[in-house]
Amino acid sequence: MTEGFQNTPQRTIAIIGGTGKEGKGLAYRWARFGHQVIIGSRQEAKAQAAASDINQLLGSKGRPVIGMSNEQAAERAEIVVLTVPYAAHRDMCEFIKPYVQGKIVIDVTVPLVPPKVTKVQMPPDGSATMEAQRILGENVQVVAAFQNISYEHLLHDEPVECDVLVCGGNKEARNVVLDLVKEAGLVGWDAGPSENAVVVEGLTSILIGLNKQFGVQSAGIRITGVPRPD
Amino acid sequence: MTEGFQNTPQRTIAIIGGTGKEGKGLAYRWARFGHQVIIGSRQEAKAQAAASDINQLLGSKGRPVIGMSNEQAAERAEIVVLTVPYAAHRDMCEFIKPYVQGKIVIDVTVPLVPPKVTKVQMPPDGSATMEAQRILGENVQVVAAFQNISYEHLLHDEPVECDVLVCGGNKEARNVVLDLVKEAGLVGWDAGPSENAVVVEGLTSILIGLNKQFGVQSAGIRITGVPRPD
Repeated sequence: MTEGFQNTPQRTIAIIGGTGKEGKGLAYRWARFGHQVIIGSRQEAKAQAAASDINQLLGSKGRPVIGMSNEQAAERAEIVVLTVPYAAHRDMCEFIKPYVQGKIVIDVTVPLVPPKVTKVQMPPDGSATMEAQRILGENVQVVAAFQNISYEHLLHDEPVECDVLVCGGNKEARNVVLDLVKEAGLVGWDAGPSENAVVVEGLTSILIGLNKQFGVQSAGIRITGVPRPD
Repeated sequence: MTEGFQNTPQRTIAIIGGTGKEGKGLAYRWARFGHQVIIGSRQEAKAQAAASDINQLLGSKGRPVIGMSNEQAAERAEIVVLTVPYAAHRDMCEFIKPYVQGKIVIDVTVPLVPPKVTKVQMPPDGSATMEAQRILGENVQVVAAFQNISYEHLLHDEPVECDVLVCGGNKEARNVVLDLVKEAGLVGWDAGPSENAVVVEGLTSILIGLNKQFGVQSAGIRITGVPRPD
């Protein structure tokens, strides 16, 4: 286990839809730090297979990841991360609602509308984050984060050249997530209230457009002109 | 005049609301490059005073800036830049409409709603850019750019540590604006269609929030992970 684990609270983090590459990348980073990560999937066997893949990558580093059904994972964890395709977002919010009351939900979803994924097209609530907050209710602190990261990079140990903008209605919840960003080896910034999530989610379409223009998978953003945390 | 001026077309650029610091900064940069910049204001005398300020700063560099009424400036120029407070945006779009048909309008406006300027609050059209495009009509190519720059930096000759995201409905118009970004000494990126302007405008609220958090005026963004133009 890393040194950081000795000094900061260990969290139990469920990653709903965690068998996708986004979820696996975050799971790897947090498990490497020492958090207890639970991969959730509709099928428990798939969650366990994904957990096993990540544990192989971890080797002796960090804390082993476990796999469960989405509802078990959401129920067990204190922080629940939503990494589902936008098409499944609304249903998954309804589904996890009873299990996440009183908790922080980190919404990583980008409301892309294929085939025009380079065009910003937000749902009626204004963003996926605002939609999740409306469905989950005021007892849940929804925080938007990690939408702009190329997940290819999370499964490697190199530094990631993309900052994380963190939005949400509650400053304490944003600070918890900013700690998790740092513990994943990334640089995060407090980007203000939930209403600002339209920018963070929409930025992904602009970065996909840049990836297409340059034939890469790595476009990101970095905040400049303020002191960078080290 | 700079070397660049010899090799690229000289443009006639009107800056509507150009007596503010945003407009003056852009005017200085483009005049220094060699473009013919016309500062526009409701009062011609104020426009001429602002032009005179900029010319003093320019010294023997570039091409002298001139001052005119907003309507004369918009009529004379081939490219019209809108740098007005959002409260004046709609009226100014209506006012310049007859003078900008067939032209490129660069909309620099950020629809901030005081006092909560750190919260993204877009107008019913979705963004100031979309509002301008609707009012000006389909014969005008509205392009969003320069919303994220701290204008303090434009009036100096140091490199600016903030990239410019350029959105608009027409790729050729975006490319013209990308050239103007470069000629202003900045790094610009094609950020896609007009619908993406909500991200570029809204990012300003996030950067204002970071400025407040860190007690600075310099927060910006930089695109990473793609080859930077030099």
